[in-house]
Order: sequence, then structure tokens, then C-alpha cells
Amino acid sequence: MSWLYNSITEPDARWYEKAVSHQAQLTKPPGSLGILEDVAVRLSAMQQTLSPSLEQVAIRIFAADHGVVNEGVSAFPQAVTVEMIRNFNQGGAAISVLAKSLAADFAVVNMGTANPAPEGDAIVQCPVAAGTQNFCSAPAMTSEQLNQALKTGADIADQLQAEQTQLFIGGEMGIGNTTSAAAIICALLSLQPEAIVGRGTGVDEAGWQRKVDTVASALRLHQPALADQNPVQVLECVGGFEIAALAGCYLRCAQLGIPSLVDGFICSAAALLATRINPECAAWLFFSHQSAEAGHGLLLETMQATPLLQLNLRLGEGSGAAVALPLLRLACDLHNGMASFAEAGVSQS
Amino acid sequence: MSWLYNSITEPDARWYEKAVSHQAQLTKPPGSLGILEDVAVRLSAMQQTLSPSLEQVAIRIFAADHGVVNEGVSAFPQAVTVEMIRNFNQGGAAISVLAKSLAADFAVVNMGTANPAPEGDAIVQCPVAAGTQNFCSAPAMTSEQLNQALKTGADIADQLQAEQTQLFIGGEMGIGNTTSAAAIICALLSLQPEAIVGRGTGVDEAGWQRKVDTVASALRLHQPALADQNPVQVLECVGGFEIAALAGCYLRCAQLGIPSLVDGFICSAAALLATRINPECAAWLFFSHQSAEAGHGLLLETMQATPLLQLNLRLGEGSGAAVALPLLRLACDLHNGMASFAEAGVSQS
Repeated sequence: MSWLYNSITEPDARWYEKAVSHQAQLTKPPGSLGILEDVAVRLSAMQQTLSPSLEQVAIRIFAADHGVVNEGVSAFPQAVTVEMIRNFNQGGAAISVLAKSLAADFAVVNMGTANPAPEGDAIVQCPVAAGTQNFCSAPAMTSEQLNQALKTGADIADQLQAEQTQLFIGGEMGIGNTTSAAAIICALLSLQPEAIVGRGTGVDEAGWQRKVDTVASALRLHQPALADQNPVQVLECVGGFEIAALAGCYLRCAQLGIPSLVDGFICSAAALLATRINPECAAWLFFSHQSAEAGHGLLLETMQATPLLQLNLRLGEGSGAAVALPLLRLACDLHNGMASFAEAGVSQS
Repeated sequence: MSWLYNSITEPDARWYEKAVSHQAQLTKPPGSLGILEDVAVRLSAMQQTLSPSLEQVAIRIFAADHGVVNEGVSAFPQAVTVEMIRNFNQGGAAISVLAKSLAADFAVVNMGTANPAPEGDAIVQCPVAAGTQNFCSAPAMTSEQLNQALKTGADIADQLQAEQTQLFIGGEMGIGNTTSAAAIICALLSLQPEAIVGRGTGVDEAGWQRKVDTVASALRLHQPALADQNPVQVLECVGGFEIAALAGCYLRCAQLGIPSLVDGFICSAAALLATRINPECAAWLFFSHQSAEAGHGLLLETMQATPLLQLNLRLGEGSGAAVALPLLRLACDLHNGMASFAEAGVSQS
């Protein structure tokens, strides 16, 4: 897995400064476009240009099943994972609708499901196994499986580079995966499950308590392996194939100079893993939104991430990132299209 | 001014309920699209359809000058008002760039400037006077002038209806108008200037103190007329032509069944006036963002308004509303394009 630690080049500081100077010339009070100015300037540094662009956006949804559903942690049956893969392919899921509206390239990556997965033009078949093991009784995956899942994410990133992708949006689907994400976050940040576990797709109070107990039990079982907070060990013990693939894709995208727009709770857990594996990855991430999932705000705060949106979304599938994409595109349009004070003959303060 | 009080029909409760039922059938955990579900359902009720649409969006920027600039309340010279009208027309201003990206119909309405205003294809000439009086020494405008400004906003709304506009985005330009807006808000909500006055386009500490003193002085001068918090009296004493036109346009749009997407601090002051004049107007307003202007959060809270965005914007021009427009459009696309559980063969919880 040595590729995980390949060096990541920082966004270009000279282009960053040039873009800041350019923003200061535009016909508006300095700083008055707020976070949109930050976005445009960061993208300028990443793309090494004064005219950043996000025409070529790729959305990839990583889908997989989780053995931990046997603990009764989800409001939906496990069959929904493959049913939703079919729905993604047929265009009926939220993220499919958004991808079409946003003219983004879209595919779902089957990382391994418990039930037979459908075939389809928008489905890439990369199954690692028929779901993970129940991490309350065994490690979620072997190190070979983890290696394969991370590498699948990296391979996707290589394809995105070949297709001249300017922005990667990752999404996930997997019944039970908020429980895996919560366990990952607790293990990496030494937090109690109560602080991080949320309602997921909508479990009731008893279901929430089962999730808390499940995460606590897993953390106890794997305590020896988790003690030094090694992100690769954490993934092996309590992760999921889709979460590992997302982390691998964020890492490889950063190595290739492709920015990523991170979705909600589960994608943020994958982003946390990626930045713990290779800290320079952080400079290539945008955080799209703070979700309604209980622990997400705390996670974002810990990562010093400023989310663009807070719309009480809790769907996953990359949907929050897709909804935030127009803000990034408009930030580019403003940066590229506004007149300077000199051009427009407008007096300065 | 009797038209101000014409009845406003509520968005249709039966279509609202139908839209809520439709949302519950879509392939996602119930409520997981958060505020986007509320937006789609409200638009369904307003348009009396299960397929809401925001293709036809009109952006109108109302521009005017303010006599109160003589008190030294702005970081920019008054000439900027007409310079920016030219910039709007030439396509170099933030809102011009956004209107083009969003394929929205765009025009700027000259409500009366101190310096000669430019002509142009995107400029509608409706000047009331060469700016308002300095409201620290006299009422900002006469009741005839107020009548004319409010009516201009209403006439614009009538034109929008004729053009089958589905959403109105109002914006404003006018050096000194954050001071007028702050005075309006303080007068209507019995607040101290310190709680509402902000930095506007970017005054320093001394400039901020001058704004606070200016608003306090105006509130003292006009105290007899302002005592009963009559919104029409408030506009006459401390308002601006562009703020009155915005209030008139919000009101008439609501009377015509056209929803409005409210921009930042100044537009929210106009929305407050509109809802104080005719409370049923509130049901037809969407609030786009909470700006960086100090008093905006408190104002939105008082109006029980949930802004879609918080991006530290403080530009005005309708720019924050324009940036929020894609969220409303995507909310419609999701509502209209997602498959139901039955259609997609996805199991429910």
C-alpha cells in the first residue's frame, strides 16, 4: 500500500496570490463575496490559472454492504443497497437526478454487496466480497480486501485524470454504513459513541441506542488493534469497502492534483481517514455541507472544515456535494466574468 | 396607496398536502432532503402543481441615492451608484455575471440618483428625484415621492406577471443604503442602532460609530412620526426610493401569486416593510442567505425566516439571492425527477 504515502503537491502559492490580487480589482467591496472568493482563489491555485473552471465534474457513488447490519442498526433492510444501485443506474435516485441537472459524469461502483448486484451501463463492477464481516465479532475485512478496496478508489481517480476531470464528487450507498463511519470517527478521534452516532436513515430511539452499543462493543473488541489510531488498521477493523474506496480516491485525486468536493457524514469519515493517512490531502478537499447527522458538525470542526451549506440534508449518495456544486461554479464565473474597477470606470473606496 | 392592502391569497393548502405526499413516495429516507423538500413543497403550493418549475426568473436591481451620505456613512463616494448602474448594464457587475450564468432575465431600475444616470438597454428609467433628502435634517421623501416609488415596484411586478415570471429576485444599489435600512429596522422593531448597524461596504470603526450616531439622531428627529411604527411613515422618514420600490414589488408579486427570493440586509428590510404593510405577503417570500452585515441575523430571526445560505456575503445587488437560485431549481428537479419506491422497486423502512 506504499502508494498511499506518495507525495502530494500543495496548490500553487503563486497562483493563489495572483488570484487574490485579481479578486481585489473586481467591482465590489473587498471580501464582499465571502466564501465564494475563497473558493475561486483556491481553485485558481489548484488549476494554476486565473480562470478556474469546473465544467468537467465526475460523480462516483461507491456502494457496498456491511455485516454489522446483523446487529439491527438500520431502519432499512439490506436489500436496499442493491435496489438503490439499480435505481442509480435507472436515473431515479436523488444523485442521478442531480447529476443530470448538473451535466456531471456519473457512475456507481459496486464494491461488494450481500445480494446479487444488478448490471447496467452506469454500474462499474469492482466487488471485493459479498459485504464486510460483522465487526462486532471479527475485523470488517482482511488486509488484502482493504488493499483492494483502497486501490479500486485510486484506479477510479486515475481514470478521472485520463478524462480530464476538474472536480471529483464522491458518494456512498450501503445499508449500515453510518454505523461503520461512526466507529471509524470514534476510533480516530478518541470520542465516545454517544457523541458521534446519529439516526442514519432514520432509526428510532431504541435503534439509536443499539447503534451506540454496537459501536462501543466494536471499539472494545478491536481495542488492541485500534490503540495507536492507525487509519489503515481502523479501516480493516471497523470500515467498509465503499468507505475505503472513497478514502483511496480522495488520496489519489490529491496526488494527481484533482480537487474533491466532500459530501456528508460518511464521506467526511473517509476524508478524515485520507488526511490521517496523508495529511497534505486536506489542501485538495472542499467540504460541501454540514448534514443533519448528529456527529457531523463535531467532525467538521475537528477537521477545521468550513462547509458551504447547512440544509439539514441526511441522504448521502453524494447528494449534498452535488447540491453545492453550483456555488463553486458560480464562484468561478464571478472570478472570471466580473469587470475590474479600472475596466468599468467605478470609483474605489 | 390603497393597492398596498389588496388581499393576498395564501399558497394552496391542498397542493401543499399533495406535494408532501409525493415527497413521501420518493426513494429516500423521509425528510432526508431537509430544507430542499420544504422548498419544493412550498413552490408546489404556490404554483398549484406537482411539478414546480423555476425556468422564468426575473432579476430587477433598484438603484437610488441617499441624502444621508452627507453624514459620512459610506466607504465609497456617491458617484459609485451611477457608475455601478453602468456596470450592471455592461455586464461587469457580480449580479450581471450571475444573471447570465443563471439564464435569468435582468434589468436595473433607476429610481433616482444624485449624479446623471447612464442610459442603456438593461436600464429602466423611473427616477423619483435626484436622491432622497438627508434624513438627519428632514424626512427622506415626501408622501407623493413615496407613493411613486412604491407604485414603480408594483408596476414592475405587473410586467413580470405579463412575462410569466415564476420567481422574482430583487436587488439594490445605492451608496448609503445600509444606513437607511438600519434606521428602518430600528424604527419597526424598537431596536437600538448598535444592534443593527453594520460595516456596509466596509467602513472602519470610526465610520461605524458615525453610522450608529446618524441612525440614532434620525430616530430622535422623527420620533413623533415613527412612534406608532407605521411602515409607510417609516419609509417616508428614513427610507430610500429603491427600498420602497422593493417593498412595493414584493407586495404586488405576492398579490399576483409570484414568489420572491429575498437577498440580504437591505432587501430583508424591504421585506420586513412589506410584511408589516400586508402580513400575508410573508407566505410568498423565500429568504436566500444570512449576510455578513451585523444586524441581518437578528432581523431574519425576528421574521422567523430560515435563510438557505450563510456564505459571509455582503455585496447586495441581489447577488446572494442569485447564488441561492440553483438550490431552488435543484429542489424542483429532485421533486419532479426522482423515482418512487414503487416505480424503482426499492424496499421501504
